[in-house]
Amino acid sequence: MNTLSAAPPADDSLGAFIPGPRVTRAPLGSGRLSGRSFAVKDLFDVAGAVTSYGHPDWARTHPQAVATAPVVTALLQAGAALVGKTKTVELAFGLTGENVWHGTPRNPAAPDRFPGGSSAGSAAAVGGGAADFALGSDTAGSVRIPASYCGIYGIRPSFGAISLAGARGLAPSLDTAGWFARTASLLSGVGEVLLPGGPAELGGPLLRVDDAWVNAQPDVAEALRPALERLEQLRGRAIGVRLVPEGIDSLYDHMRMVQAEEIWATLGAWIEATAPKFGPGVAERFAAARAVDPSDSGRGRAFRRAFQARIRPLLEGGAILVMPTSPCAAPLLNSSLAEQDSVRQATIGVTAIAGACGLPEVTLPAGQVRGAPVGLSLLAGPGRDRALLAFACDAASVLGLPV
Amino acid sequence: MNTLSAAPPADDSLGAFIPGPRVTRAPLGSGRLSGRSFAVKDLFDVAGAVTSYGHPDWARTHPQAVATAPVVTALLQAGAALVGKTKTVELAFGLTGENVWHGTPRNPAAPDRFPGGSSAGSAAAVGGGAADFALGSDTAGSVRIPASYCGIYGIRPSFGAISLAGARGLAPSLDTAGWFARTASLLSGVGEVLLPGGPAELGGPLLRVDDAWVNAQPDVAEALRPALERLEQLRGRAIGVRLVPEGIDSLYDHMRMVQAEEIWATLGAWIEATAPKFGPGVAERFAAARAVDPSDSGRGRAFRRAFQARIRPLLEGGAILVMPTSPCAAPLLNSSLAEQDSVRQATIGVTAIAGACGLPEVTLPAGQVRGAPVGLSLLAGPGRDRALLAFACDAASVLGLPV
Repeated sequence: MNTLSAAPPADDSLGAFIPGPRVTRAPLGSGRLSGRSFAVKDLFDVAGAVTSYGHPDWARTHPQAVATAPVVTALLQAGAALVGKTKTVELAFGLTGENVWHGTPRNPAAPDRFPGGSSAGSAAAVGGGAADFALGSDTAGSVRIPASYCGIYGIRPSFGAISLAGARGLAPSLDTAGWFARTASLLSGVGEVLLPGGPAELGGPLLRVDDAWVNAQPDVAEALRPALERLEQLRGRAIGVRLVPEGIDSLYDHMRMVQAEEIWATLGAWIEATAPKFGPGVAERFAAARAVDPSDSGRGRAFRRAFQARIRPLLEGGAILVMPTSPCAAPLLNSSLAEQDSVRQATIGVTAIAGACGLPEVTLPAGQVRGAPVGLSLLAGPGRDRALLAFACDAASVLGLPV
Repeated sequence: MNTLSAAPPADDSLGAFIPGPRVTRAPLGSGRLSGRSFAVKDLFDVAGAVTSYGHPDWARTHPQAVATAPVVTALLQAGAALVGKTKTVELAFGLTGENVWHGTPRNPAAPDRFPGGSSAGSAAAVGGGAADFALGSDTAGSVRIPASYCGIYGIRPSFGAISLAGARGLAPSLDTAGWFARTASLLSGVGEVLLPGGPAELGGPLLRVDDAWVNAQPDVAEALRPALERLEQLRGRAIGVRLVPEGIDSLYDHMRMVQAEEIWATLGAWIEATAPKFGPGVAERFAAARAVDPSDSGRGRAFRRAFQARIRPLLEGGAILVMPTSPCAAPLLNSSLAEQDSVRQATIGVTAIAGACGLPEVTLPAGQVRGAPVGLSLLAGPGRDRALLAFACDAASVLGLPV
């Protein structure tokens, strides 16, 4: 095993990597990912390094990791080389990618905008070419949103498909390990290494998630509609579906209670004991998590169960949901906290579809709005990750995107 | 919210509950579980109490919980009353149920034998009548084995079906929250509260898992065969299947590497920093976890992916696997560590079937060997938990077991 690199870090003009000596590891074998470089969000452990979880107080109050997260070991064993650990929003709780302690990574595709988060550094590293692919985590959009904002591919796998051993938790019934790549084939190739087997193909129809198309800002929907139409040429006319008859805001309202209850159950004791300072907006979100009334989270859990029972059977025949990954392009760096919060609320209602039901979701860099990237999402039933990645490769080809 | 009870604890002649003031909570609502009492394995948080995780050093180095695990809140909201927190094997890593710090709970069905673990206190509390049902956790058998040993019902749900927020982790890709009950209908009733929706019925055939029937001690297989035959009268002749052509020991060999790697990634840093003393056998198991070679765990992960790809499609049509829950009845209290270890190895090969594939498994108290209970297991495809519980109720009725 090699140790922490004492060499000067390679170029990091985007500020994607955590400050300090670069954490690197040579491949542990050769295979599907030989010759590829990757970066890892700094909430996965690498033996010998302290995992910061995006906050200096977390780093200060936790010992260095004695073991490497199995998901990282698996990538090294498949031939990839680790080139560094990347910045995350503090305790992974935020979607803009801002981190006042480590500095906010720059968005390589839209320098005047946020990179998206919480896996901000992983998205920036891949988008900017500092790594071929990168691991992130996704609880409520933390891979999908930065992938959409930075104009690259990203996947949130089926819930439970990838081990979270050696990874810090946020909301355990929603947490997943996902990844980013600049090409559909590499996104899929990483899946060949990490994902369990499953159906090889998605034989079902396209389902257009009208809740999300209507929720999207008009210019975002307009930018992505041509991509939807080309997918229809590939797979036949899409069937419009309304997944949340109560309105997408209702999904947001219920799922944020479920998430907040879990976040406080996971991190409350450490926050109470340590009283860490948080950057703009983060403290308020943790305070809200602390204040959740169990009757509200109970209603949220019941809503979620009913939603799962309605949505999962829809996808059993191999249907594919299609929708804008995010209702908005990345917020401008000089936007107000209130503007950021309204984007966040509109976004989480959409990202909660996969979260609530444990669905795999791939985002493709399919559109642009005033020079800023916006992603198109494809979702499938739980366990159909490999088939979804295969379809994403076909879709990329039809859409003229990097395969 | 009520506080820690200062009243003298109710009868605990079996030693099921953790020492000290009993942690009780009144219901938070009324519903499916009104009038029922329950206990909770002391690795789930209850706000205001320190979670011991079965070890005094864990309790000493962790603050009291500031939030209650959502799964516990859900049970309180459904009308159940919490009557105490129960003993677990140290850090949930062991199958006999022994705990040298808190005392080993007695097996209410076979007082000269171990209760099984790691959810030993929850099984003893339910078996002995101190609670109507109880939460446990199951990584490699920690609900199924004590249920089998104590002659009660137990369920390990589909991986990911129940939130583990506010619960201590052991091997995150295998950890699940399960429960115990004395009747099939209450086992199922708890599932109505906790489980997401899913198919209502299992329409497929019985599949007799010959690997496990052959692996079982002859008297255990003989004691359970009449139950299998009565299930065949209910559902038609079983089809014999060999799930692990390489031999069940091979599944054990690979899965213990996967589990050990995750255990060290989860608990290694705390163990290194705290250097806790462990009871007989536990220290050796953690030392083995620490020493796992990544090439061995890598082979284990690859074996697991191939096994999942082979087994899951078998269960897509609603087939039901049937097998002895454990190859042995509970070991005698005066058995040697070597004897206990050989039982453990034979057992984990069988319990790893559900673990490796994320399958739900219900154990029914269907047989006895020289006065000691042995369980019969029914398993289904991932997400079919409710249908499996419904079938378990039918099976209990046919077998003349408590419905």
